[in-house]
Amino acid sequence: MACVPIERFDVPSDAREQLRDITGEVNGALSRLGVASGICQVFVPHTTAGLVVNENADPAVCHDMLTWLDAQVPQHDRYLHEEGNSPAHIKATLVGQSLTLPVDGGRLMLGAWQGVFLAEFDGPRRRTVVVNVVGS
Amino acid sequence: MACVPIERFDVPSDAREQLRDITGEVNGALSRLGVASGICQVFVPHTTAGLVVNENADPAVCHDMLTWLDAQVPQHDRYLHEEGNSPAHIKATLVGQSLTLPVDGGRLMLGAWQGVFLAEFDGPRRRTVVVNVVGS
Amino acid sequence: MACVPIERFDVPSDAREQLRDITGEVNGALSRLGVASGICQVFVPHTTAGLVVNENADPAVCHDMLTWLDAQVPQHDRYLHEEGNSPAHIKATLVGQSLTLPVDGGRLMLGAWQGVFLAEFDGPRRRTVVVNVVGS
Repeated sequence: MACVPIERFDVPSDAREQLRDITGEVNGALSRLGVASGICQVFVPHTTAGLVVNENADPAVCHDMLTWLDAQVPQHDRYLHEEGNSPAHIKATLVGQSLTLPVDGGRLMLGAWQGVFLAEFDGPRRRTVVVNVVGS
Repeated sequence: MACVPIERFDVPSDAREQLRDITGEVNGALSRLGVASGICQVFVPHTTAGLVVNENADPAVCHDMLTWLDAQVPQHDRYLHEEGNSPAHIKATLVGQSLTLPVDGGRLMLGAWQGVFLAEFDGPRRRTVVVNVVGS
Repeated sequence: MACVPIERFDVPSDAREQLRDITGEVNGALSRLGVASGICQVFVPHTTAGLVVNENADPAVCHDMLTWLDAQVPQHDRYLHEEGNSPAHIKATLVGQSLTLPVDGGRLMLGAWQGVFLAEFDGPRRRTVVVNVVGS
């Protein structure tokens, strides 16, 4: 049983809102961590970005999700926060900044259609993703 | 300290949308895993189903939640995803596919009114739930 | 590697809806647990309160989030649940009752602007927060 050092990697975004598939990067971090089975934690230390697990086959699914969020949390409204990015904070809270995923054979044990996405809501900018694992 | 093999069980749903109480099944998986205390992970390897922790006393709470979600994420809209189940993907992301719960005495340490539910958003069909635990 | 006893603390709320910063209390629990690195789980055993990670610098961010949630989940609607607090149950599910966070050097490894908040949606009342950690 081991709790290995924490890994991290950067993800650039190139639009204000974007879902970037980071499944490969998380599996890469798991390889470096060398834990065969257990629980993997993925975390973003940001308040206007989040993490989503969803279909990575048809990009229309990501498009529909961002469109729906944008309709629900309008970009301009009577927000008090003066930086103008309250919608990004709200969307980040709705999807969450922390995920746990099962690890088997040293890789994420995801469903056939699942991918892990960094959800950028206030880009473009550079984001950090933290990967942590407990197991054996 | 042990990271035991991953358990799983199937849950059938019999409606398009449904919250199915799986608290007993998760506790059953914990019994087979034999870990007394630690962190339990519950995960669904699906993109149109999720997991919810909420009141399992009055079924009206589940009804109100599904009704609210249905009003917010309309079944028919200008979705690009051609399978027609974009609302199910969006709802699954809103509630999440992964949960962690404290384990004490070999069972989930839930509040008096809490239950764990599989949230079916694109049924009826058969779903898989994965249970993983790290602890001692 | 250790899975130490579970810690808990109480949080009083003094309004119907409120985000209370509990970052210091969670770090205090981690100190008592004495685990240097691993995964920390924060959990609320309630069905009308949740947990949020978001900006703790400008209180306007919390204000905007609660205002948005209140607009989306109206306090009075055709809810079946007769206790009148269905909106609180729905909001708790949207933000979630369980969080995992990375631990490094015996403290939460949060981003520069992140804090952990108890989200009260049916106060004022006294809430319990459970803190659990696996690591070494």
